[in-house]
Amino acid sequence: MNYGIIRYVIGWVMVIEGAFMLLPSLTAAVYTEGKDAVIFLACAFVCAAIGALLVFKKPKTTAFYAREGFVLTALSWIVLSLVGTVPFVVSGAIPSFVDALFETVSGFTTTGASILTDVEALPHGMLFWRSFTHWIGGMGVLVFMLALLPMAGGHSMYLMKAESTGPNVSKLVPNIRKTALFLYGIYSALTVLQFVLLVTVGRMPLFDAICMAFGTAGTGGFGVLNDSIASYTVSAQLIITIFMVLFGVNFNFFFLLLYKRFKDAFKMEEVRWYLGLYVGVSLLISLNLWLTNGGSVPMILHTVFFQTASVMTTTGFATTDFALWPAVSQSLMVLLMCIGACGGSTGGGFKVIRVLLLGKSARKEFSHMLHPRNVKVIKVDGKAIERDTIGVLGVYLFCYVTIIAVSTVLLSLDGFDFTTNFTATIATVNNIGPGLSAVGPTGNFAGFSALSKIVCVFNMLIGRLEIFPMLLLFIPATWKK
Amino acid sequence: MNYGIIRYVIGWVMVIEGAFMLLPSLTAAVYTEGKDAVIFLACAFVCAAIGALLVFKKPKTTAFYAREGFVLTALSWIVLSLVGTVPFVVSGAIPSFVDALFETVSGFTTTGASILTDVEALPHGMLFWRSFTHWIGGMGVLVFMLALLPMAGGHSMYLMKAESTGPNVSKLVPNIRKTALFLYGIYSALTVLQFVLLVTVGRMPLFDAICMAFGTAGTGGFGVLNDSIASYTVSAQLIITIFMVLFGVNFNFFFLLLYKRFKDAFKMEEVRWYLGLYVGVSLLISLNLWLTNGGSVPMILHTVFFQTASVMTTTGFATTDFALWPAVSQSLMVLLMCIGACGGSTGGGFKVIRVLLLGKSARKEFSHMLHPRNVKVIKVDGKAIERDTIGVLGVYLFCYVTIIAVSTVLLSLDGFDFTTNFTATIATVNNIGPGLSAVGPTGNFAGFSALSKIVCVFNMLIGRLEIFPMLLLFIPATWKK
Repeated sequence: MNYGIIRYVIGWVMVIEGAFMLLPSLTAAVYTEGKDAVIFLACAFVCAAIGALLVFKKPKTTAFYAREGFVLTALSWIVLSLVGTVPFVVSGAIPSFVDALFETVSGFTTTGASILTDVEALPHGMLFWRSFTHWIGGMGVLVFMLALLPMAGGHSMYLMKAESTGPNVSKLVPNIRKTALFLYGIYSALTVLQFVLLVTVGRMPLFDAICMAFGTAGTGGFGVLNDSIASYTVSAQLIITIFMVLFGVNFNFFFLLLYKRFKDAFKMEEVRWYLGLYVGVSLLISLNLWLTNGGSVPMILHTVFFQTASVMTTTGFATTDFALWPAVSQSLMVLLMCIGACGGSTGGGFKVIRVLLLGKSARKEFSHMLHPRNVKVIKVDGKAIERDTIGVLGVYLFCYVTIIAVSTVLLSLDGFDFTTNFTATIATVNNIGPGLSAVGPTGNFAGFSALSKIVCVFNMLIGRLEIFPMLLLFIPATWKK
Repeated sequence: MNYGIIRYVIGWVMVIEGAFMLLPSLTAAVYTEGKDAVIFLACAFVCAAIGALLVFKKPKTTAFYAREGFVLTALSWIVLSLVGTVPFVVSGAIPSFVDALFETVSGFTTTGASILTDVEALPHGMLFWRSFTHWIGGMGVLVFMLALLPMAGGHSMYLMKAESTGPNVSKLVPNIRKTALFLYGIYSALTVLQFVLLVTVGRMPLFDAICMAFGTAGTGGFGVLNDSIASYTVSAQLIITIFMVLFGVNFNFFFLLLYKRFKDAFKMEEVRWYLGLYVGVSLLISLNLWLTNGGSVPMILHTVFFQTASVMTTTGFATTDFALWPAVSQSLMVLLMCIGACGGSTGGGFKVIRVLLLGKSARKEFSHMLHPRNVKVIKVDGKAIERDTIGVLGVYLFCYVTIIAVSTVLLSLDGFDFTTNFTATIATVNNIGPGLSAVGPTGNFAGFSALSKIVCVFNMLIGRLEIFPMLLLFIPATWKK
């Protein structure tokens, strides 16, 4: 294990987080929340200073491998979360450490589940930081670092692989730094565009628009109002719907668009399935709601397409309480929660590409069962998928299901009903936010015990980093020579 | 596709089922249920006659392959179920066809879920048939046929593979007919032993003891009293507990015991994990119950070890309403439901061996991630597992999860709560019987619509035949030349 590089990268993560904390400090200052401005400034300084100390001595060798990539990513995210918790606790905005940790991890992992019962009571600086964590976590702090830092040796691909979503992370361009720059470029551009649209077309207050843009971009879901998105204008809701869907798309799609390879872009199987599922399930739910309660069709479509986008991209914004919808619609929502967004997006969940690959893999096995001498290759977008990638998928699904089972059992120690425990697990592992029953869109995670909150913190980190980095951290073999 | 062999085997299945129906006819006669005795006799005659006609002309070639093996198995079970439904409908015991089909499929697949609200109202002949279907379905009608019929060509292994449980079905002895004979031999011997013990030690009425032995042997779960097993003596409950656990064991274990290979038998990893999980989870639940409500420790242990055995072996007998237990215990029960019994047993569920193999596969992948040049082989009981077997496991899990998701959505059309729909699916796909909420141990499936019952029928058949035979039946490629 190359401990030098671990120290070095974690140092950089702290420097970057320190720099990021200047923004909430500024926000607090603007809203004359003097004490909070100082707290953020102090945190930023201490964090960056410790980071600088760690970075000061360059590691003997910058060469590292998959093992260090996983460990580094998991540790970076743990450090990121612990440091991000400090301002909430020190300022007294969220006095309990476990609660503040839950909220911060929920932010960075872009889950958006909250232990706050009254969001509006939080000062602006804190609200800004809370939403900003979504934006940092969405694309990832290590990808940000890779965009800034020219890292020698070319091994930094391991970091990008471990932090980015999806089973087959690939470089968009041969150079990793350029890939990272491109990803953050398009990410920032879309965020700014959404912000501008929310303010101009959506007539949303400036502060709310910034926070909503952060929450949408990272597919996070923290709001600044107690009713989430319900009281914003219809046009603002529509803009958020569109951008939620966009941020759930594989960023390769935007890359292809920018290089004017439109045909390739619109041929991307994952994106087609993602949009197809989104539209299909939304129409089914709309039909179900209309048949059950009647009402204005355009309004039903507006509400449903918002809510399904929110759940499928694992953002978690709410304009309505879907826990009150008919049972079929609720089941369909849980299904969308589990499938999630595209790989290579800022969204969470199991990812459309994994479902697609497993489906193709099933078809291949069926064909092999019927004609044992047939050997097919699994292709996506015309490219053969490596045998290794497919092999890992089964293991990924197994770990995913096992984590859901164990977490449901642990959460049930608090005595809530089965639906609450199961969907709280689903909502945290998939980085969504709301579940059903006690943790539904109008509920929150405040009622859970400290143990359950820590289980949820693990779930969220496991979900955001897609299982392996966090699991490997707890395996002795990882630390052996 | 060798249609000749399909006709031939289905013919034999009908002949065998006709012969089996003589037993309930006899039972009805003994209990002076004259009309029912005649109905069973008539059904037996007609069924056997049609079967004899189909069998009359031998197929041109008895050679067949995996494809025919799957199709044959699925079709045999569908025919078996449809024919088994007739006596219930004709006699008026269960007038609705869908209800009778549900009950019969629940019987043959050894699920034990019922649409009857008053079991005790059924005449003895019908109750006998209902429990006897468990016994027939437990080890399988095709395995029974293989024990009787010397099938040429050696391809009959495909039938045994498709009907028996577990991912790695193997012959116990080189000869398939002898393997089948051995399986039915030990199966019958254990059933008789349990029957004798129930009558002598358990002081159970003769009729009840026969039905309970059938229900336990097939890990089915149909009772003949409305309170299932609750009103039998404690010693009878204890005997049932022990035999449920025994019938959930991989039959290879008994084979090794009989050949005095005790060391090999007790080294079987799957059996050790199965018993370990059973005892471990039972102790956890007992502790949870004792801490929550207090009470007599021996009685708690007695109740819990009965109930966990019932759920883990997917039998589904009940002495208590575990839907009233604390939330953790309920979650643990759902977990046991999903894991299920050993492969190569009469039990259902995902099977311990699959969990074990996936766990080992995960460990292998972790090690591969940490040290990409390491290539390990997965071994169980010291023997290497074929790469193909592992590859199919991921696909199996994917199909399993997908079926659960789709079924949960379809069942929710009836408007029950999420827990009901989810656990009704779990209970049918895993061939258990009771779930939680509306389908809990004291509830039943009577409240579901006809559509939902048909979904459950599919679930039960898919679960008993372990997914692939039923799924392949609906794939066009299966029927292509």
